[in-house]
Amino acid sequence: MFESARTGSRAALARLLSLVERGGSSARDVGRLTFPLGGGAYTVGLTGAPGAGKSTLTTRIVAARRAAGDEIAVLAVDPTSPFTGGAILGDRVRMQDHALDSGVYIRSMATRGHLGGLALATPEAVRVLDAVGFRWVVIETVGVGQVEVEVAGAADTTVVVVNPGWGDAVQAAKAGLLEIADVFVVNKADRPGAEDARRDLEHMLDLASLPDDGWRPPTVATVASTDEGTEQVVAAIDAHRTWLCSDGRLENKRAQRVRDELLAIVGERVVEQVRALRDGAEFARMCSAVEARELDPWTAADELLARVPRS
Amino acid sequence: MFESARTGSRAALARLLSLVERGGSSARDVGRLTFPLGGGAYTVGLTGAPGAGKSTLTTRIVAARRAAGDEIAVLAVDPTSPFTGGAILGDRVRMQDHALDSGVYIRSMATRGHLGGLALATPEAVRVLDAVGFRWVVIETVGVGQVEVEVAGAADTTVVVVNPGWGDAVQAAKAGLLEIADVFVVNKADRPGAEDARRDLEHMLDLASLPDDGWRPPTVATVASTDEGTEQVVAAIDAHRTWLCSDGRLENKRAQRVRDELLAIVGERVVEQVRALRDGAEFARMCSAVEARELDPWTAADELLARVPRS
Repeated sequence: MFESARTGSRAALARLLSLVERGGSSARDVGRLTFPLGGGAYTVGLTGAPGAGKSTLTTRIVAARRAAGDEIAVLAVDPTSPFTGGAILGDRVRMQDHALDSGVYIRSMATRGHLGGLALATPEAVRVLDAVGFRWVVIETVGVGQVEVEVAGAADTTVVVVNPGWGDAVQAAKAGLLEIADVFVVNKADRPGAEDARRDLEHMLDLASLPDDGWRPPTVATVASTDEGTEQVVAAIDAHRTWLCSDGRLENKRAQRVRDELLAIVGERVVEQVRALRDGAEFARMCSAVEARELDPWTAADELLARVPRS
Repeated sequence: MFESARTGSRAALARLLSLVERGGSSARDVGRLTFPLGGGAYTVGLTGAPGAGKSTLTTRIVAARRAAGDEIAVLAVDPTSPFTGGAILGDRVRMQDHALDSGVYIRSMATRGHLGGLALATPEAVRVLDAVGFRWVVIETVGVGQVEVEVAGAADTTVVVVNPGWGDAVQAAKAGLLEIADVFVVNKADRPGAEDARRDLEHMLDLASLPDDGWRPPTVATVASTDEGTEQVVAAIDAHRTWLCSDGRLENKRAQRVRDELLAIVGERVVEQVRALRDGAEFARMCSAVEARELDPWTAADELLARVPRS
């Protein structure tokens, strides 16, 4: 399946990604297989409130990258995204621009329910796309939940999309989007208040007192629906990429990501183990002993921990 | 220290409870010591929104129990409680009613910060009070956070306090207070809307479709500031206690609590272990190997898990 995916079979690629979505041991097998082959992909996270125009902007970025000759994949982990079927027909039709282009691969991710969920499945899905040869992967998430914000923030370059309108920048700050942004986009900039939104963002950046050698996220105004500003967004992403690729910054960022991911995997495995423990006979025995006051809960917990399987 | 506490030293009792609050291995030692000696205390959880009058009601319940000759302890895990120093002088002075009564012990709990926190420290503190001889323990929590609601709900009888006013019952439902209530109190019932609040609660209970052999929480109107309705609250608690003590219901409820607590302790220990792992040399080595693509993250996680210490 993996060999087919590498030689261009979209059906095989889709099946691999489904395994990753599903989680568990087959996801791990896919992970073990694809891991040594990746490392060449550059990831762009794109996030913002529902309705901010993230998918339209993603379409524009995809088109710009394709025009430059790059192959590009999109992972839409945004339940409000038209890519995932959550939006109106007009948006869906627009995405069909790329439907016949074999240099573009668009995939929605739905991992709700399984342990670890998005946080574990997304980097794994990126590695699959990386291993089959995509040099660019865009990860679109809706910037409302902590996991979604983290997933977008774990990209090499993260684009945060806001709209004009009182308080939108403040809402973004509250959702933790300011901390992860490498590029700000004020989309729907043809509406009133675009300049105010930009000024709010700049003001918040001033307050954030970035380090001297830090990256100050530029703010780009766009009207994604008419393709206005796309060039500037792509240029801002490229500028951040150039900055990140110097002085070992990209390596440091990716090393931090490895640490976070390893801890997340270990955490998920441990939770799995504790769940298995809870359903086992030993747990029931320990509970009875505590109820009968033959054993205190701390000693019972020690004995249970000693029985947690190691793999 | 424990022997002093058992023979009536309040200073020794306070020191034991401080160890419990602090968590970690000395809390566990206290737990191991006190566990075999308890089992006789009956616990009453009392929760509701800030300002609902929980502490005043607690004072009234304490006075009623004392009048009946019972020794009673209060654990205030409510940061907005006057017992914990969070409220106005008037309330504090009122609590001094019991200050010179050796049959009453009032203790605020502050566990913010340590792992497991309230969820683990509160049952342990109850066991200490149980072991030194208190037959009644009131646990007062502010019903806003999930942990606080769970802590109050883990008592033998849980009293949920609401006030008259549009939507207070609905807010209680949203906070998950309906599920844990064995007795509802509409406090400040001299204010407009008391009857509406009572009707809202009854309506929500109708919708909840309790099982035929279930307990339908009675709703009691009180004005705690003038001691109105205290008798009915105490009677409602006693009625629930009588119901609970028949047909093995109390044993079942406490058995479920043992299961929950054991899982919470195991979970906390595992989190501690994973944190220790993260700070260890092996974790750093694994991260480097993954960064160098010599090892995939799933295999690295397996190897780390195999190194989690067993105790």
